[in-house]
Amino acid sequence: MRVVDIITKKRDNLPLSREEIHFIIDGYVKGEIPDYQVSALLMAICFNGLNNEEQINLTMEMLESGESIGLSSINGICVDKHSTGGVGDKTTLVFAPIVAACGLKVAKMSGRGLGHTGGTLDKLESIPGFNISVSSEAFLKQVSDVGIAVIGQTANITPADKKLYALRDVTGTVDSIGLIASSIMSKKLASGASRILLDVKVGEGAFMKTLKEARKLAHSMVNIGNSLGRNTVAVLTNMNEPLGKMVGNSLEVIEAIETLKGNGPKAFTKLCYELAAQMLLMTNICKTRDDAIKLVKQKISSGEALNKLREMINAQGGNAKVIEDYSLLPMAKHKEAIVSRTSGYVSDINAEKIGLAGMMLGSGRENKNDVIDLGVGVEINKAVGDYVNKGEPLVTLYYNNKGRAAAEALVYEAYKIETEAVKKDDIILDIVR
Amino acid sequence: MRVVDIITKKRDNLPLSREEIHFIIDGYVKGEIPDYQVSALLMAICFNGLNNEEQINLTMEMLESGESIGLSSINGICVDKHSTGGVGDKTTLVFAPIVAACGLKVAKMSGRGLGHTGGTLDKLESIPGFNISVSSEAFLKQVSDVGIAVIGQTANITPADKKLYALRDVTGTVDSIGLIASSIMSKKLASGASRILLDVKVGEGAFMKTLKEARKLAHSMVNIGNSLGRNTVAVLTNMNEPLGKMVGNSLEVIEAIETLKGNGPKAFTKLCYELAAQMLLMTNICKTRDDAIKLVKQKISSGEALNKLREMINAQGGNAKVIEDYSLLPMAKHKEAIVSRTSGYVSDINAEKIGLAGMMLGSGRENKNDVIDLGVGVEINKAVGDYVNKGEPLVTLYYNNKGRAAAEALVYEAYKIETEAVKKDDIILDIVR
Repeated sequence: MRVVDIITKKRDNLPLSREEIHFIIDGYVKGEIPDYQVSALLMAICFNGLNNEEQINLTMEMLESGESIGLSSINGICVDKHSTGGVGDKTTLVFAPIVAACGLKVAKMSGRGLGHTGGTLDKLESIPGFNISVSSEAFLKQVSDVGIAVIGQTANITPADKKLYALRDVTGTVDSIGLIASSIMSKKLASGASRILLDVKVGEGAFMKTLKEARKLAHSMVNIGNSLGRNTVAVLTNMNEPLGKMVGNSLEVIEAIETLKGNGPKAFTKLCYELAAQMLLMTNICKTRDDAIKLVKQKISSGEALNKLREMINAQGGNAKVIEDYSLLPMAKHKEAIVSRTSGYVSDINAEKIGLAGMMLGSGRENKNDVIDLGVGVEINKAVGDYVNKGEPLVTLYYNNKGRAAAEALVYEAYKIETEAVKKDDIILDIVR
Repeated sequence: MRVVDIITKKRDNLPLSREEIHFIIDGYVKGEIPDYQVSALLMAICFNGLNNEEQINLTMEMLESGESIGLSSINGICVDKHSTGGVGDKTTLVFAPIVAACGLKVAKMSGRGLGHTGGTLDKLESIPGFNISVSSEAFLKQVSDVGIAVIGQTANITPADKKLYALRDVTGTVDSIGLIASSIMSKKLASGASRILLDVKVGEGAFMKTLKEARKLAHSMVNIGNSLGRNTVAVLTNMNEPLGKMVGNSLEVIEAIETLKGNGPKAFTKLCYELAAQMLLMTNICKTRDDAIKLVKQKISSGEALNKLREMINAQGGNAKVIEDYSLLPMAKHKEAIVSRTSGYVSDINAEKIGLAGMMLGSGRENKNDVIDLGVGVEINKAVGDYVNKGEPLVTLYYNNKGRAAAEALVYEAYKIETEAVKKDDIILDIVR
């Protein structure tokens, strides 16, 4: 087998066999196939795509390039949720406690934020003492006992995906449905859960800008998951404005806790309930969506869901008193409203720009090794559809020593205000099974 | 400027600016831009192509990456001919003496053979004593005095093209009209001639398999040449069987000499005359094609064209007695006819396979550093359109110590014999100005 023949085959729009995909991935991970041949192949894939079988085979090869997390010791149904990444996305902090309160086991390995999107690990680390570096044994025990654990990646899962992703990032070959689907699903499969719920974000602030593209990605991922023996469902959700009111680490933890207390923003609450309900259906804990939503609401009103978060914080060494006393969380020194320069209806809030505004203040990383400021961020005061008077706050910036001016400029760029009332899109756009 | 943005732009089918092309080529030659980014860009170009302006800019950038040959000291019109590569292509050895006999100056840097195609330098080196390594001064003096010199490349012309070509070769990105046209034309421009005649081969034995593709390439190259101030014409010629009867170094020199003596094979003679006539028109030596063909025939019948070859051989230290005594050329020890297994009309001779048969016998190189055997080769006994009886020779193999069996097998693969008479394509398919 010659690499150049495989590249030429894909360039000529012929499907690659399992053996050919194995040859490429195996050789690439071993360093036997150079970057320049793989990047040419990736570009050919960007143009000609990968069919279902190729996607499944690529996912398998990436999965098999590394370790997998064994969850067989856990007594219960292990579930996982994955978001394709959004601004203000603290969904895991609400979803996981709810489904854990329903008896499901959430063994979650999470990531850090980069660029305009935040990471669950960073958010959790704003809780004093919270430890995301836990041994495999302690992690599995916590999942068994508490039903929920969120930690950083320990095992060497999908090294092929890591190497490929780094190459895609610098060769303009990120935007391929087949490559994105295989990348995400290889990591999800390695994480060991038997039920995978995907939250596919759609809109300007997301990877997938249109519903059509997002639906394609969702179908690809659901097909890969189901074909490889994991019950997989994707929920397509609106990312045409930031999720919830808060963007920033401490701020998002507070919003998540408020939501678990039943006081969350409407759309964000709806999203968390829907995701939890879908998982209850996937695991046959509930038979109908109505029953599932009812059960979710009950776990909120009874405080059981909030209690699961408390148990997790305690188990991972964090100070769970933050749940009652937000002043224990890191807080920015300064707070300033950015006011509207005009009156009208908010028609659009570019989530990516709000995310970047937060990053400028220090809530996110421009480069991998940047140190972030857990207390800073952006509070959305006017959402899409709201009417705003000139001089009224659009957002409130929470900041310390940097980025205020840059953040303010980004906020003004992000907001579109029109004279006509606008229809707000529903947070849930579609469900793909 | 970021490389990834330039790749993405081309991937999204937007044209690249002169500055962007400069940034890529300059950075690549300097080693500042890695292979893996360039190969991804090349693949995007394979899909989305290069428009006329991009082709001109790429040609200029590759040209300017190295030296150019200064021909201003030569008193006369400097002309160049380039073939896109065929099997049995000894055209330069006939064309150049004819036009030199008409007063034109042919300052030719030629290449060696690789794979199934031969190189003019190798053919000339079968003449005892012939020296292809000549100083720049001696080269220019010979062109001035004799009107013709064919040497190996001395100057460091188009290093960017060399580096790009090596990368294209291993990344499945050779087959792009824009890249091929820019590659060829950058070298032709660096060679300094003011008139460039392109012999674009079409058919199974050539780079361009169809007339449509070949015409596209011809238009691209003619456009680049004319846009950059060189009068450029392309002749599209048939490569659906080997050119002439002889494939192999000594054998092709003999055939070229025979053609200069007026005894060449019909189609090959026609090609040489047409190319020479086109050049006489381009340089205004003749006003009509009829006049040009007449002048060519006169230079053959008078022996002036043959004499130019003699002068060149003498000037470059070769033994010009080979012209009268072919036994002075290296000759294979063994000679064997490969006979037809069936009766019928020859409908096709795959030129690539005949070229490979020659290579197996040692007339060509499988790898760059292989030593070739100048005496071996293949003589075509039955051409396309000929009737052959079972048991009659298709070809004659000239061989020494290797490759006979492999060559025989390739000959049988190359020949297609049918019961119905077939129409033979004309050697000249089209002319693009």
